[in-house]
Amino acid sequence: MWLKTHCNFEFTITGPTPLVLMLRPRSGENQWITQEEYLIEPFTPVVEYTDIYGNLCQRLVAQPGKLSIHTSAKVRVPKVLKSAPGAPFVEVQNLPDSVLQYLLPSRYCESDRFGNMAAEITQDYLLGYDQVAAIEKWIKSNFRYEPGSSITPLSAMEVNANDYAVCRDMAHLGIALCRGLSIPARIVVGFLHELKPMDLHAWFEAYVGDQWYTFDATQGDAKGGYVAVGYGRDAADVAIYNQFGPQTYHDAQYIHVEQLEN
Amino acid sequence: MWLKTHCNFEFTITGPTPLVLMLRPRSGENQWITQEEYLIEPFTPVVEYTDIYGNLCQRLVAQPGKLSIHTSAKVRVPKVLKSAPGAPFVEVQNLPDSVLQYLLPSRYCESDRFGNMAAEITQDYLLGYDQVAAIEKWIKSNFRYEPGSSITPLSAMEVNANDYAVCRDMAHLGIALCRGLSIPARIVVGFLHELKPMDLHAWFEAYVGDQWYTFDATQGDAKGGYVAVGYGRDAADVAIYNQFGPQTYHDAQYIHVEQLEN
Amino acid sequence: MWLKTHCNFEFTITGPTPLVLMLRPRSGENQWITQEEYLIEPFTPVVEYTDIYGNLCQRLVAQPGKLSIHTSAKVRVPKVLKSAPGAPFVEVQNLPDSVLQYLLPSRYCESDRFGNMAAEITQDYLLGYDQVAAIEKWIKSNFRYEPGSSITPLSAMEVNANDYAVCRDMAHLGIALCRGLSIPARIVVGFLHELKPMDLHAWFEAYVGDQWYTFDATQGDAKGGYVAVGYGRDAADVAIYNQFGPQTYHDAQYIHVEQLEN
Amino acid sequence: MWLKTHCNFEFTITGPTPLVLMLRPRSGENQWITQEEYLIEPFTPVVEYTDIYGNLCQRLVAQPGKLSIHTSAKVRVPKVLKSAPGAPFVEVQNLPDSVLQYLLPSRYCESDRFGNMAAEITQDYLLGYDQVAAIEKWIKSNFRYEPGSSITPLSAMEVNANDYAVCRDMAHLGIALCRGLSIPARIVVGFLHELKPMDLHAWFEAYVGDQWYTFDATQGDAKGGYVAVGYGRDAADVAIYNQFGPQTYHDAQYIHVEQLEN
Repeated sequence: MWLKTHCNFEFTITGPTPLVLMLRPRSGENQWITQEEYLIEPFTPVVEYTDIYGNLCQRLVAQPGKLSIHTSAKVRVPKVLKSAPGAPFVEVQNLPDSVLQYLLPSRYCESDRFGNMAAEITQDYLLGYDQVAAIEKWIKSNFRYEPGSSITPLSAMEVNANDYAVCRDMAHLGIALCRGLSIPARIVVGFLHELKPMDLHAWFEAYVGDQWYTFDATQGDAKGGYVAVGYGRDAADVAIYNQFGPQTYHDAQYIHVEQLEN
Repeated sequence: MWLKTHCNFEFTITGPTPLVLMLRPRSGENQWITQEEYLIEPFTPVVEYTDIYGNLCQRLVAQPGKLSIHTSAKVRVPKVLKSAPGAPFVEVQNLPDSVLQYLLPSRYCESDRFGNMAAEITQDYLLGYDQVAAIEKWIKSNFRYEPGSSITPLSAMEVNANDYAVCRDMAHLGIALCRGLSIPARIVVGFLHELKPMDLHAWFEAYVGDQWYTFDATQGDAKGGYVAVGYGRDAADVAIYNQFGPQTYHDAQYIHVEQLEN
Repeated sequence: MWLKTHCNFEFTITGPTPLVLMLRPRSGENQWITQEEYLIEPFTPVVEYTDIYGNLCQRLVAQPGKLSIHTSAKVRVPKVLKSAPGAPFVEVQNLPDSVLQYLLPSRYCESDRFGNMAAEITQDYLLGYDQVAAIEKWIKSNFRYEPGSSITPLSAMEVNANDYAVCRDMAHLGIALCRGLSIPARIVVGFLHELKPMDLHAWFEAYVGDQWYTFDATQGDAKGGYVAVGYGRDAADVAIYNQFGPQTYHDAQYIHVEQLEN
Repeated sequence: MWLKTHCNFEFTITGPTPLVLMLRPRSGENQWITQEEYLIEPFTPVVEYTDIYGNLCQRLVAQPGKLSIHTSAKVRVPKVLKSAPGAPFVEVQNLPDSVLQYLLPSRYCESDRFGNMAAEITQDYLLGYDQVAAIEKWIKSNFRYEPGSSITPLSAMEVNANDYAVCRDMAHLGIALCRGLSIPARIVVGFLHELKPMDLHAWFEAYVGDQWYTFDATQGDAKGGYVAVGYGRDAADVAIYNQFGPQTYHDAQYIHVEQLEN
């Protein structure tokens, strides 16, 4: 299916402000970008670099006054998510070098403290994909998806003390549980077609059966329509924007995803 | 200045054909992409990766029949090239690790055999930028720029046996001479505003005074309007397309660069 | 000064156990390895790779029974630590791309929650090196260095609730406070000459004045003798060994650092 | 089998001379280093970095006078080379991204001009491993291995005009022929047990059947005993030392490989 994503931000900048943005999706295994726009007004010099996860990041120094950022992308993505019941656990010694880092605990995924809980949740399941599916289902059953309920990221342990969460924090919990079973897991931020209410979204991927599979405890079924913008260990790595220095006002934000005909 | 680049290719594919394309410019120090299109017809799954030089490359398997590729980009680039007479030679021990590879000889730049010639051409010049400018000037004076005179890349030694060359091969000679003086040099392929006749273009960069500077022995002065698409040691690294397997017919090609108002 | 480091581990392995070790120091800016040993008994096939931080890591699958690992290195390191009072804060826009990741919060360094505290501790100091020195001094004054007081890593917030800490956790607090001021900071694990009691050690580095400087809140002055084995965002990235799967018994450990004559 | 390699160089340096050395073998798939020495006399500060091929390189500025470099390594390597008759050709679309660069022509391997010749030599063989074995055999039959016959590297085309070659240049020819068939190939420099006469050695690897296999047209059979020190596209990438600036005298060189008992 072909989607067009839109993301607009309006800021008020009070002094020269270094920004690092992560707003340019890349073409990869599961998405192909055929058209893209990235407008910054007023024009500001930007340097782009690739971070350690392969994300394209944009560095600039915003000048005092209004700053608008408009991005859009026309992307082809699968209509349904790949699923693979029975796909086996990959023994740690067989993981690619580049995947190993997704076994480690991280800022918002204290996987070192979730081993027992993960074992319990998944005790009746085959090692691998089915364990991750069980984790996803367990989160769905035990946490109310409540968009907007947390502005700053909560860690898996903090989420686990609640019975509701935003998408990003549900992903944190899913990731921490996977890693607690030595299943590599990572966060993805981006867009989701027909997300309600529409906003930027976050979900997680787990590495089983020699590839990454998408999981999302906030959604009802395996529907597709995901457009990835950034990958990382958790929300600390994939901030859509990181600002430094003076106070910045985030005046407005507009996110939209539409399905295209062809 | 704002430019819009267009690049269209038409191929006839006779059997399933692996292609590696390098047709997506990246935002970097000297160019900022605000809009971009990359259409492949008929639709073909594509995977993009970053090569060892930081170029975005697209991998696909073209199916038998017609294949069209249309790319365009709206890019902000400097109106005039940065020049820096007097910028000093960087002692090898002070070069960044990542720049060292551009001192080595490569397929089309046999710099190991150009040391004496480079020393002679630059003997009256200050070490660094001025040596590179002298090399550029020497190539301009001694070689006729003859677009279309060579289909396959010629190496610096082959070029040097002639008195004419295409842009790519002039760049090879410039690079080989720079490296012969222990000045890191690399090829760039991309677009040039008002290039005559319009086509894809190639030029070179040399690392002096702690940064890369653009040189182009095919042009009359330091005018800007360059849009980089790929960087490498020489033409072997920056083929706009590499095809493997069955015979492919490159039926048509259309390159266009226009200047935009704002 | 020339040091010889020794590190011996004895394990009892109860079933085939994937291990990822980080026990091979690399030659770098501040240390030069002239001799090195890495013995694994019984012999076990090992594959080495470089992680995202540049550390050399060794992957193997230990077989049931006893496993001993002996490493040693003869290393030249500075006799005194480089210090640079007055070295300026580096504006975020001027940080190298590769340093940016050390601004982000991480598993054991919740820097997103230490901004105010860091500002308070450093309010009377010049931006940059002096702020980091103030942080180091503040930790020294407020926390008792108590080796062995914590087996598993504690995060900066957990440490901050105590009045004592091990070296690793003091580093976590120092890092979190630096990052809270937008000063990049990272953990280092390795050896320290004359550490009392002798053990593996951890400290931190902060990036000011365009380079990394070493800080260590556990030690009395700027004495040298540090041998780095691994770098990372925090302890999660630099485990000397990560084991997966069956229960492993860490029977014995011997760490020794001696100074050599020449 | 366990080998101990020794490599000693003596230089006379006439002025401060930047050197880039590649003398530290890494542990990898096929070799495990348990002991290593790297002595530079007089002591000179060295910085080590990893190049784009994963080789460990040492940078230093040698001071006027005598310079000796002694390295040794105790290494476990296979007693016989892995061979895999019948291992299939890997279609270009299935090659890992990181392997693609070994399809490109390079300084001493003008593979763009060896397609027809490679097709002819291998016409009676299965695609893949058997083609490479046929190339190796063809080189053995048509070129006399003559150590010392060429000081500077010769390219595949230059070699092909002769009927003798050194190991490095035989590797160039083998690589150019493989790449001419779209089989990725790379050069390896290092040590070979019982090489006659003993010296540093060079051979090549080809990527078929989803892994790299070793080939060496200078040797009689598939005996093992290879210790890799550097990998690259050809000799331009894997110089054991690259010196820049003033004249340097390479006074002496001693290479030795011994087999150890255990």
